[in-house]
Amino acid sequence: MTDWLPTLQTATPQEGYELAVKLARVAVKLTLPDAEARERLRPEYAQDAEALIAASQVVATHFATIAAANDYWRDRQ
Amino acid sequence: MTDWLPTLQTATPQEGYELAVKLARVAVKLTLPDAEARERLRPEYAQDAEALIAASQVVATHFATIAAANDYWRDRQ
Amino acid sequence: MTDWLPTLQTATPQEGYELAVKLARVAVKLTLPDAEARERLRPEYAQDAEALIAASQVVATHFATIAAANDYWRDRQ
Amino acid sequence: MTDWLPTLQTATPQEGYELAVKLARVAVKLTLPDAEARERLRPEYAQDAEALIAASQVVATHFATIAAANDYWRDRQ
Amino acid sequence: MTDWLPTLQTATPQEGYELAVKLARVAVKLTLPDAEARERLRPEYAQDAEALIAASQVVATHFATIAAANDYWRDRQ
Amino acid sequence: MTDWLPTLQTATPQEGYELAVKLARVAVKLTLPDAEARERLRPEYAQDAEALIAASQVVATHFATIAAANDYWRDRQ
Repeated sequence: MTDWLPTLQTATPQEGYELAVKLARVAVKLTLPDAEARERLRPEYAQDAEALIAASQVVATHFATIAAANDYWRDRQ
Repeated sequence: MTDWLPTLQTATPQEGYELAVKLARVAVKLTLPDAEARERLRPEYAQDAEALIAASQVVATHFATIAAANDYWRDRQ
Repeated sequence: MTDWLPTLQTATPQEGYELAVKLARVAVKLTLPDAEARERLRPEYAQDAEALIAASQVVATHFATIAAANDYWRDRQ
Repeated sequence: MTDWLPTLQTATPQEGYELAVKLARVAVKLTLPDAEARERLRPEYAQDAEALIAASQVVATHFATIAAANDYWRDRQ
Repeated sequence: MTDWLPTLQTATPQEGYELAVKLARVAVKLTLPDAEARERLRPEYAQDAEALIAASQVVATHFATIAAANDYWRDRQ
Repeated sequence: MTDWLPTLQTATPQEGYELAVKLARVAVKLTLPDAEARERLRPEYAQDAEALIAASQVVATHFATIAAANDYWRDRQ
């Protein structure tokens, strides 16, 4: 995984949100590098409301960082 | 889902809160794109205090971001 | 629920804390609009230390936002 | 509970930490006003590492707020 | 426990991290003052990945506060 | 573990993310110094979606700190 995060700046809030989702996924990859093991976990996700919400929390935390990095995209207004 | 988040700016704190709820829901959609699977999870939500509170935590985190983006709506005073 | 959050500014830290509790409750209402369903969950709360603490965490997150919005009530000193 | 939080300012970081512990406890009181019910939960705490750590997380979140409110007590140096 | 937290300022990021670990432990002590009870919980920790990660989360939250208090040790560069 | 954290500054966001992963791991080491005990926990990780996500949350919190320390790598643009 080389050069997967060149910048935190994005053109729009929506792109910032998508980057937050990406950052959340990378942590899972780095913690559990085995792709097959990750694949086995996926069905568990889909049936576990708490796991799903916890994943949303990670996204929310990354989005806070990215929004600050972009000064909340205030210049777009 | 194109252009669902054009800005973090809202006219009032309440609209900011509603946007936070929306951001929390989008993460669930992006993690679990299958609408039927999400529908199956919903009953579990309604009977699980911890899942419900965890969802509130995601909203709280997004609201913090949106409130900062709006400089806490101080200009309205 | 119209106009339930006109401002994040409060006169005192204590009123700010009470607003944080209110914000935490609104998220539960918005996620689980059925009042009876919420009422059924309440007994579970009262016997589950972890649910109770998780709810406190949501309050703490909202209080952080509100405290920043009020510049930590420094002017009162 | 009147006037239990007149200010977020404290003389020292340690007093700020103690205030954070107090803020964490108040949320539990407000969520579960029945003192006897809280007393019944206490033994559960004492045997549940996760509940204990979750309570520490609430304290950490409040301490972050209070530390910012005191500009991290930099003037004391 | 008198005067255990005279300052949030540390000479290096590493000392800041160690202080964060200390702050996390103090919360457990204040919540569960009985040393023997804490000792009984320790084995549970060592076999519970989630408790261990939750404890890391508390450290991360305190480290964020301490890093801000030290202006991220930028002056050292 | 001497001098494992000389600075929070990194050249790129990606290096900042890798440092966040490192900080998250150190907390586990400090809490559970016994390497064998950590090794026993690892298989549990690999089969527990919630533990994996919780670990991602710790990374996200550290990344927020590191990103702020680097002023979000804005100078690179």
